[in-house]
Amino acid sequence: MPFVDDLIAFSAQPSADLPVSAVQLAKLSLLDWLVCGRAGVEEPVAQKLRAFGVSEGGFQTASTFGGSKMAPRMAALFNGAVSHALDYDDTHFSHVGHLSVGVYPAALAVAEDVGANASDLLAAFVIGAEAAIRIGTVLGASHYNLGFHQTATAGAFGATVAAGRLHGLSSEQMRAAIGLCATRASGLKSQFGTMGKPYNAGIAASNGVECAQLAALGLTSCDDGLMGPQGFAETHNPATLPSKALWNQGSGNRLLLEGNKYKLHACCHGLHAMIEGLLLAKDAGVTFDDVEEITLRTNPRWLKVCDIKQPRTGLEVKFSYAWLAGMTLRGVVTGAPDTYTDALAEDPGLEAFAENVTVVGDDTLTDLQAAGVLTLKSGKTRLVSFDLAAPLPIETLQGKLRSKAQACLGQEGADIWSILDQLDQMNAREIGRLVSS
Amino acid sequence: MPFVDDLIAFSAQPSADLPVSAVQLAKLSLLDWLVCGRAGVEEPVAQKLRAFGVSEGGFQTASTFGGSKMAPRMAALFNGAVSHALDYDDTHFSHVGHLSVGVYPAALAVAEDVGANASDLLAAFVIGAEAAIRIGTVLGASHYNLGFHQTATAGAFGATVAAGRLHGLSSEQMRAAIGLCATRASGLKSQFGTMGKPYNAGIAASNGVECAQLAALGLTSCDDGLMGPQGFAETHNPATLPSKALWNQGSGNRLLLEGNKYKLHACCHGLHAMIEGLLLAKDAGVTFDDVEEITLRTNPRWLKVCDIKQPRTGLEVKFSYAWLAGMTLRGVVTGAPDTYTDALAEDPGLEAFAENVTVVGDDTLTDLQAAGVLTLKSGKTRLVSFDLAAPLPIETLQGKLRSKAQACLGQEGADIWSILDQLDQMNAREIGRLVSS
Repeated sequence: MPFVDDLIAFSAQPSADLPVSAVQLAKLSLLDWLVCGRAGVEEPVAQKLRAFGVSEGGFQTASTFGGSKMAPRMAALFNGAVSHALDYDDTHFSHVGHLSVGVYPAALAVAEDVGANASDLLAAFVIGAEAAIRIGTVLGASHYNLGFHQTATAGAFGATVAAGRLHGLSSEQMRAAIGLCATRASGLKSQFGTMGKPYNAGIAASNGVECAQLAALGLTSCDDGLMGPQGFAETHNPATLPSKALWNQGSGNRLLLEGNKYKLHACCHGLHAMIEGLLLAKDAGVTFDDVEEITLRTNPRWLKVCDIKQPRTGLEVKFSYAWLAGMTLRGVVTGAPDTYTDALAEDPGLEAFAENVTVVGDDTLTDLQAAGVLTLKSGKTRLVSFDLAAPLPIETLQGKLRSKAQACLGQEGADIWSILDQLDQMNAREIGRLVSS
Repeated sequence: MPFVDDLIAFSAQPSADLPVSAVQLAKLSLLDWLVCGRAGVEEPVAQKLRAFGVSEGGFQTASTFGGSKMAPRMAALFNGAVSHALDYDDTHFSHVGHLSVGVYPAALAVAEDVGANASDLLAAFVIGAEAAIRIGTVLGASHYNLGFHQTATAGAFGATVAAGRLHGLSSEQMRAAIGLCATRASGLKSQFGTMGKPYNAGIAASNGVECAQLAALGLTSCDDGLMGPQGFAETHNPATLPSKALWNQGSGNRLLLEGNKYKLHACCHGLHAMIEGLLLAKDAGVTFDDVEEITLRTNPRWLKVCDIKQPRTGLEVKFSYAWLAGMTLRGVVTGAPDTYTDALAEDPGLEAFAENVTVVGDDTLTDLQAAGVLTLKSGKTRLVSFDLAAPLPIETLQGKLRSKAQACLGQEGADIWSILDQLDQMNAREIGRLVSS
């Protein structure tokens, strides 16, 4: 069956048929997304996009981070960008992008608008996120390498499917929504390092709201805008053979959403495996003062990204193995964005520690793995390693995400996570109040 | 100088420095665009997009065809789609797209919003249209053949530049606006035949309003989103070498806008050269009843597009050389969209005439040329030919566009053209009233 037909059938499946574990992950993603968005409201891009929303006006049915409501399409644009402003949101590596910042802003804006309940919202996220992942996977690394940003491109389809489900689209309307999204979706990686990057997440979300609603109003489009002739896949990655793409390519019935990853440290993703490995050593009793030297092995690609030996600013600290190694063993809260001050780059203790950290490339390691040896002052050695690809028990992940929330937002972060067990009884407008408060 | 730097400098040039002939063409395009938009308001896509605009609300500062005002970004989306709904708007062949439906809706919405006068609006159109043409030309036929729709893609940049000029953007803001447009622009040809095609024109216009305003508010973007590394050109046409693209590639100081073409007959563009050739014969005294047979030569590509021998519906008549030949000589108003009824496909006189029309492919003709021989019942023969690429004297063009307006809208169309000589004294809000009335 053509990919798009499977996608349309999948998008209509009853919420009760979705795997419980996927819905549970959707809850974690929702709360983590709320934390990222609330933590992003002071960023310059948030202030500028709020001014845009205020100047346009509209029927204010959809909550926005840190302020008053906006019309759904504008709220999706705003919330998508704001929640991606710190680049601290979840990542799916085979999708090659960030899921929540494209899909949740669209889904929540529509869910509030139509008066859906939280379980509808969670199901829409599972379905939209899965659509984004599978489309992102078909577009593949070559789409990304060509210069496209899956968070925006595949993300728009995920947002469309999630928003369309909440609108209760028929199969034919869902087909039109996907077709319209094919001509509306966009987003380039050359924006990285500018406000255009978070804007890309907002674009995805806003396109989802727009295309779903236009399809609900009866706008028509082509039969297969996604994988059909001169559809999105063919035009945006001439290397693909979209007509051969199957929904279940190698995945069976397993939802790829289960592979979603969460950032737990407010620094470059290339450092996270090392940090987790050192945290295990620290939990086992190794202290900052115990360590004589560290030799760390990492995938060679990271050496060009995050191996700044002597950072000069807080921003550069976020890209320094040597600094983060010392910070982790010292118990610094690496999950708090405001940890990374310029003063930290001049900390004499960390500077001395950094001199004893050696980082070497090892191409037997994936870019989600790190391994190393700690030589202790006692003369003993200790091996450390971590693989971010290995699934964490959900309780462990939950605990880490709670800690991240508190590191970012203090008591506010704890309050967000306190609703986890009540989510099933809530409605989307109550969740909206957590966005805007 | 890199293309984008020339574009930014061009976008800031004083209105008084623009060629008078280009401003005159901008006036013709404006009035013809008003006619196309007013003629499109009953189309289904117009009704559905109006429902979208009404549901979103917003500060109503921008006029829309056939109804009340909307917020600028929504008005641009609506007016772009509605004015392209009949596919009767202007075309620029080296741009490979339609100029007015992308650029004017954006420019007018912003001009009304900021209170600009008509001469600002006309200058913004000249500059935005020229940007769209030159970007469309760099993207080239291979962008179009890959599956992209320049009306939407290059059109978005034209709309952005026009809207940005009306916002009074600084050079750095204009650079950001172009960068943001690079990540926002989209549009696929696989929408043709569906409401997605006019939606594409609306997308271009709406993206222009959005990106210009975001740049005015201080959103940042990359330095050269257009021709830079992994910019729009490189990602959307891997066959181009955007870094080699120059603004003045072969054109000197001549504005390419001067090559803009206007549709004068409400049928497939492939038929227009034949119709114009037959109109010359008719003006010289040849009547419908005089003709024994016609042999017509046309570029072979049209044989697959508009050579329906026996049309069954009014829509099929629009793609029939044989029918249009008879209609033209009979004096049927080929410029009126409602001429093309299903009953016309059953007209016995036209059917008999059509049996004596032969169409042959001739690859020495461009796709803007037609040539042929009329054999008259008197035994005489008469050669006909026409080249749509040859520039028409502006008075001739003006007269033909006036006739088109009347064919489409009757007295309303004549009223629109009656303002031609007053345009210089008008402001954008007065022009807005011509949109909505």
